[in-house]
Amino acid sequence: MCGIIGIYSDSPVNKKLFYGLNSLQHRGQESCGITVSNSETLLRERGMGLVIDVFDENKLNRLEGNLGIGHTRYSTEGGNYEYNTQPLLSFTKGTEISISHNGNLINYQILKTRLEEDGMMFQTTSDTEVILFLIARYYKDDIVDAIKKTMDVIEGAYSVVLLLKDKLVAFRDNRGIRPLVIGETESGDTVIASENAPIEIMGGRAGRNILPGEIVVVDENGINSYFHGGAKKPKHCIFEYVYFARDDATLDKVNSYNFRRRCGEIISREAPCDVDLVVPVPDSGIPSAIGYSQETKIPFAEGLVKNRYMGRTFIKPTQEEREMAVKLKLNPLRHVIEGKKIVLIDDSIVRGTTSANLIRRMRDAGAKEVHLRITSPPVEYPCYYGINTPSRMNLIAANNTVEEIRERIDADSLAFISMEGLQSATLIRDDRFCKACFNGEYPVDPVVI
Amino acid sequence: MCGIIGIYSDSPVNKKLFYGLNSLQHRGQESCGITVSNSETLLRERGMGLVIDVFDENKLNRLEGNLGIGHTRYSTEGGNYEYNTQPLLSFTKGTEISISHNGNLINYQILKTRLEEDGMMFQTTSDTEVILFLIARYYKDDIVDAIKKTMDVIEGAYSVVLLLKDKLVAFRDNRGIRPLVIGETESGDTVIASENAPIEIMGGRAGRNILPGEIVVVDENGINSYFHGGAKKPKHCIFEYVYFARDDATLDKVNSYNFRRRCGEIISREAPCDVDLVVPVPDSGIPSAIGYSQETKIPFAEGLVKNRYMGRTFIKPTQEEREMAVKLKLNPLRHVIEGKKIVLIDDSIVRGTTSANLIRRMRDAGAKEVHLRITSPPVEYPCYYGINTPSRMNLIAANNTVEEIRERIDADSLAFISMEGLQSATLIRDDRFCKACFNGEYPVDPVVI
Amino acid sequence: MCGIIGIYSDSPVNKKLFYGLNSLQHRGQESCGITVSNSETLLRERGMGLVIDVFDENKLNRLEGNLGIGHTRYSTEGGNYEYNTQPLLSFTKGTEISISHNGNLINYQILKTRLEEDGMMFQTTSDTEVILFLIARYYKDDIVDAIKKTMDVIEGAYSVVLLLKDKLVAFRDNRGIRPLVIGETESGDTVIASENAPIEIMGGRAGRNILPGEIVVVDENGINSYFHGGAKKPKHCIFEYVYFARDDATLDKVNSYNFRRRCGEIISREAPCDVDLVVPVPDSGIPSAIGYSQETKIPFAEGLVKNRYMGRTFIKPTQEEREMAVKLKLNPLRHVIEGKKIVLIDDSIVRGTTSANLIRRMRDAGAKEVHLRITSPPVEYPCYYGINTPSRMNLIAANNTVEEIRERIDADSLAFISMEGLQSATLIRDDRFCKACFNGEYPVDPVVI
Amino acid sequence: MCGIIGIYSDSPVNKKLFYGLNSLQHRGQESCGITVSNSETLLRERGMGLVIDVFDENKLNRLEGNLGIGHTRYSTEGGNYEYNTQPLLSFTKGTEISISHNGNLINYQILKTRLEEDGMMFQTTSDTEVILFLIARYYKDDIVDAIKKTMDVIEGAYSVVLLLKDKLVAFRDNRGIRPLVIGETESGDTVIASENAPIEIMGGRAGRNILPGEIVVVDENGINSYFHGGAKKPKHCIFEYVYFARDDATLDKVNSYNFRRRCGEIISREAPCDVDLVVPVPDSGIPSAIGYSQETKIPFAEGLVKNRYMGRTFIKPTQEEREMAVKLKLNPLRHVIEGKKIVLIDDSIVRGTTSANLIRRMRDAGAKEVHLRITSPPVEYPCYYGINTPSRMNLIAANNTVEEIRERIDADSLAFISMEGLQSATLIRDDRFCKACFNGEYPVDPVVI
Repeated sequence: MCGIIGIYSDSPVNKKLFYGLNSLQHRGQESCGITVSNSETLLRERGMGLVIDVFDENKLNRLEGNLGIGHTRYSTEGGNYEYNTQPLLSFTKGTEISISHNGNLINYQILKTRLEEDGMMFQTTSDTEVILFLIARYYKDDIVDAIKKTMDVIEGAYSVVLLLKDKLVAFRDNRGIRPLVIGETESGDTVIASENAPIEIMGGRAGRNILPGEIVVVDENGINSYFHGGAKKPKHCIFEYVYFARDDATLDKVNSYNFRRRCGEIISREAPCDVDLVVPVPDSGIPSAIGYSQETKIPFAEGLVKNRYMGRTFIKPTQEEREMAVKLKLNPLRHVIEGKKIVLIDDSIVRGTTSANLIRRMRDAGAKEVHLRITSPPVEYPCYYGINTPSRMNLIAANNTVEEIRERIDADSLAFISMEGLQSATLIRDDRFCKACFNGEYPVDPVVI
Repeated sequence: MCGIIGIYSDSPVNKKLFYGLNSLQHRGQESCGITVSNSETLLRERGMGLVIDVFDENKLNRLEGNLGIGHTRYSTEGGNYEYNTQPLLSFTKGTEISISHNGNLINYQILKTRLEEDGMMFQTTSDTEVILFLIARYYKDDIVDAIKKTMDVIEGAYSVVLLLKDKLVAFRDNRGIRPLVIGETESGDTVIASENAPIEIMGGRAGRNILPGEIVVVDENGINSYFHGGAKKPKHCIFEYVYFARDDATLDKVNSYNFRRRCGEIISREAPCDVDLVVPVPDSGIPSAIGYSQETKIPFAEGLVKNRYMGRTFIKPTQEEREMAVKLKLNPLRHVIEGKKIVLIDDSIVRGTTSANLIRRMRDAGAKEVHLRITSPPVEYPCYYGINTPSRMNLIAANNTVEEIRERIDADSLAFISMEGLQSATLIRDDRFCKACFNGEYPVDPVVI
Repeated sequence: MCGIIGIYSDSPVNKKLFYGLNSLQHRGQESCGITVSNSETLLRERGMGLVIDVFDENKLNRLEGNLGIGHTRYSTEGGNYEYNTQPLLSFTKGTEISISHNGNLINYQILKTRLEEDGMMFQTTSDTEVILFLIARYYKDDIVDAIKKTMDVIEGAYSVVLLLKDKLVAFRDNRGIRPLVIGETESGDTVIASENAPIEIMGGRAGRNILPGEIVVVDENGINSYFHGGAKKPKHCIFEYVYFARDDATLDKVNSYNFRRRCGEIISREAPCDVDLVVPVPDSGIPSAIGYSQETKIPFAEGLVKNRYMGRTFIKPTQEEREMAVKLKLNPLRHVIEGKKIVLIDDSIVRGTTSANLIRRMRDAGAKEVHLRITSPPVEYPCYYGINTPSRMNLIAANNTVEEIRERIDADSLAFISMEGLQSATLIRDDRFCKACFNGEYPVDPVVI
Repeated sequence: MCGIIGIYSDSPVNKKLFYGLNSLQHRGQESCGITVSNSETLLRERGMGLVIDVFDENKLNRLEGNLGIGHTRYSTEGGNYEYNTQPLLSFTKGTEISISHNGNLINYQILKTRLEEDGMMFQTTSDTEVILFLIARYYKDDIVDAIKKTMDVIEGAYSVVLLLKDKLVAFRDNRGIRPLVIGETESGDTVIASENAPIEIMGGRAGRNILPGEIVVVDENGINSYFHGGAKKPKHCIFEYVYFARDDATLDKVNSYNFRRRCGEIISREAPCDVDLVVPVPDSGIPSAIGYSQETKIPFAEGLVKNRYMGRTFIKPTQEEREMAVKLKLNPLRHVIEGKKIVLIDDSIVRGTTSANLIRRMRDAGAKEVHLRITSPPVEYPCYYGINTPSRMNLIAANNTVEEIRERIDADSLAFISMEGLQSATLIRDDRFCKACFNGEYPVDPVVI
């Protein structure tokens, strides 16, 4: 999971990219970066941490140029190294190219090995470098041609923005697994991003989705669209609506706020329970809890206070202090939940440890009963398309029945939304969504590593 | 408005103060500081900015000691200077004293002038220095006596924690205007703070309120309580529940989450309106909107997305960028509000500019009607007890009727909760609350400067 | 030891103060600060560390004003706390005053106690606060009168610059113990500083010394001079020329470079030795070693390489690493000294540990003999006028004969310049220098604390 | 010009690399970095700026491992980009390699183009990436074999340290143009570096030079040496002794301090002048000025005070302030030079602007005559082996006679050391030095770009 953005303007884009990246911060807090073109050369600044910590006035001022791209990177378990921080840059055959990528190539290892046999050297452990390398290799004069040839060989999920000295380019895999939208602002800038929030923030309307297999080139000739030609049935990641996207995102015709609200309504019908209060796990559980409450007429209540100011800190806690850090993040509201029967609404269970901790603390704060409703089906399969799920060994739902999970997290009852319920919350009939993490039906055969 | 904290422990308090201050960050983001005692001397670190930005591992490590105090300071219009950053320190007659103060002395100028005539020199522009000075002057061997003598002469609102080499001391003005709570953690630490959140975060139960006129001394003799003897009828600031305190705060027997929820219920009865959705202005409007919705059965909806990651930034925006910064903070959710009649729930109107901007943007995002309900009465009078309200000239409600305000902010309808409604939301009959900002009945005669 | 500076201009002084403070960095590396007047209020920024680390573009930009003062503070053993960082500020009786002070009051404790009895509270542990307090107390309309009254009661060494909203003021104690010079730049700015370097850097000529007992006021009426009237026989600190001042300083008619060179010549005659090379301990030993070499015709050689880039670091070394840090700072040049008889020229011996370490490392690097010549007499008495010497207990010369010192530091021979030699190096006949650290004749009776 | 270092130890090397890099700071102040191996993976930290600014306790703590390499990078005109910061890293065919390089490949463009034709993509604009790529490509099991094959194709100057998970490797080009030394410390660590300072700082003896064409492998099998087999007549860069190396460096049997001193002696005989004082341009002119003075018996004097504390600053100066910044760096000592005839000793003239400015300021400070002696011949040709000289167009000596230069810098007289003088200062008879920048005789045909 990552956030990507590109802007083509006739005025400096450094601060626009800064604000835009901030609105994509929820898609990655580990590191971030910006590359701009001053039309003679590409200039880049990157760093570990939040956008507001990495960039200051000095750094932004060094990024002078009217077109550029940016990236926010998610914290992954094995690869939080500065060399993986994006955008990546290539200086090859007199051409400078910079790339921001969201997604995951499933044939990364095969391609990497083959390219190494061809003599290629890799300087990161990220699949993005493979995409950049292939484009650089195929590129002569025609960037669209180079991208098409690259798309011929890479398999998996990829939404990409590229920067050349005079062009902003974007493309999306043939199944459209990861989102990518494009829009124009009132002042005439073209903005391409993982979600529509950056476009709206810059004063633009929502724009449109870049289509599966589409390649968009923005330059002095305007906005031109090309197609790879290999488009498959769309398989948009449904987990975007479950968890990743902001409430204000409308991606591939599904609005995430309304999707979440409907999931709450649906699970309230699928798995009713006799409780006094509906309590969301903030922030992503809120719309679903609203839906649950409205459907059941059981009062909605904020039962957990989230600390709004606690960003990344470099203070190393001891064990006792670690407990403080957890409570600082999310504190049960005793006066609301004491003596009450509660249904807690959360978006997913991955390992189960967070849910167990939360339920214990709800009971400590006086809850009489704690029921848990999850607005996604059990996550039984790892994602190979860009979401950092643990291996099956650590997925609690891959190894336990719902009843076993309930016991381990000590909930009074536990239910997950059904696959049908999830689909129907999209308001779309045909199955154009990737639900592989729930049902194991991978749109592209994963190469298990 | 500020947050204060003190901890007495038998283990290092530096990181506990760090986490505690973080949970009081909502009470002040301008600057912060910590003083600890290593039993030989007092050590202090202060700085401008958020707690997580001011303190790093190095700074915390320099603060070695088992008792200490901290402070988070609110941004005020005229006085954001480093010299006003608390805790203040005094080295007088061989005694080191450090102080954190929340509140405001109304006879500050008189005392300051009188003390200057006596030959005192001031190094800050804050009334806290007057309190510190008086205590230092009166102190011989008995800190309680010195505090009593100080309380004889200072008038206004003050909740104070003091640190001596071997003692943590706290006291509260005779009307208890600003909150102050005390509690013990499981490991036996004594924690005193503006709200109960720090106590809970450290694993303690809510504790009790320090009473108006009470002086608490924590040292090797345990926790001992004294009284000034001049206690008046309590006048707890009701604006704490309206706006300042966290949802999980229970101060002087009123829980702020439930108070806010009840305010929503009450205003829905006092000023009903025919709308499709109840939308809160996050974050403090959420419980009231929940109450409004539950009372009226009109659906509650999150219609504004708040950016969770945008802290303080030093990037100076141009005019165009300023608009981006505002939208980045709070973005209307077009898919929720488009074509809908909305009632927006906010806690207060001070100048009116924020409300006007918000209503305009709701309309831009497609709202058909925007009604505004405010869960406090019109703020017609400045606060002299520690809240940084503008002078009457700039208080929109001091110079305009409700209808005039409605017109200026362009709402379809506008209503404020009644004074009776506000009182009844506390569930307390007798009038033990300061409501001076609404009705001009100042518990202590303000000395207008 | 500290560096002080004040500038009065008709254009912004923030960057001028920044460059000026940098040229006074050798007089204090612990902390620094700047106060300017924007004619309505005084603005201050301070911090721990070097001038280039404390101030950045942002901080300097906040210091807008055409007059201001600055301070660099020396590292002292007991008092490196942020609250002692200068300039100090006072807000009293409607008047804002800021102060930078170099020197030491010997009646600080008496004054402090007396003022505390009068009810004064102190917020630092620095005597500068006493001076600021007294001036603030005496000040009605006439700053010169307030300073005179203050000078009536304070005893000791003080060179001071004061900033009022519309005035830059400077004064110097009646014996002129610490230096203070004033000059004008080509663009018409008035600059007052501890040494002449800042004046020269800003394009001015050396200017003149502010006289013992003189008070200088710079404001819209130009530069006006007043006298306290209690001037005593001058007692300029001779250690300024021995060690503190830059080579380009000419203070009270003595140029430090030439003084140092002559000290080398004199000691070469007073204590000749049969060696191959004259090696300075950089940087202050260099001019003396040049003088020694020129007088004796023994070749001068750089035998120690100083690392030019090692500033303050926050890396905590282990014991093994500590040795590296020492060697990193000063590395013997084996190819120069191997097999050679060396005379090492240093400015002073205080504790003796540094000399012992250096001589051992010279021998390790192959020196056949290491003789040590010190261009000041033995430091037998502590300084009470602003130099941070250890108590007599730790002064190696207070408790050991020259022969005993020689043995402890393991030098082949050791000699100190004579008192007469030191005096004659000034080229001034009459005894207008304070040499109390050498002979115990304190110009003002020290009150031993 | 860069500084490189590698350490193989049985204890953590992070702080050793930190101290070692500090002692190589004079070889590059633009950026720096460290890679260590924790035996499972390589860990890297890099940044723009000085070693003490880039690395703090946190960053060093992340670099856990017992072997590692480091790099300090010189400021070059066209390429100060973060992507060129070394060490570089490669992840290829399951092997992690990191590289630090000092020097310059003359066939970089040819190799780059050929490799690009083969499909390689470049992510930096530095020739180091070509070396890393070739080694990674040739590497199967035998690193020595891969290096030999790489040395077969790369042409130019290169001193390189490589890090593998379990090996520290170093090699030097067949002419030994850039220096590289190896030594052991008392605790048994092996240290390889551009100069001997790091070895001495860690408590080791000077060690030996790695020979032209030599490849050294340090691992669990000890230290093993191999040869490429293509060794040519050595051509050590003589400019190392003229300017780059520290005074305590002994590289390829020439000690730089003694070389510099002898250059001063020689030029005093070659170009005598009738003056009162010999004044060095600090710091590299000092040994030569000592030599000049000792040979001529004309007194040596420090006539320029260098500010020891002014590191890199981010304060942007105006024109007036720029002059201050220059004076702050180097201030003429009026009391020493006023009324005197001066010979100024400097190591080289490149553009001539610095000399002109310095001579003007010497005259302003009262020098009666200013003669200039340069301890290197005129720099008429650009360096293609790693020193960042400007193109011939900007080399003042490439386009002007000595007399024309004298006139432009306004010196009373000007002389450069002769080629013979320079050679004889090395005390070595045969011509084993590269002097291409003086005589245009490039040891390897440069490919002008």
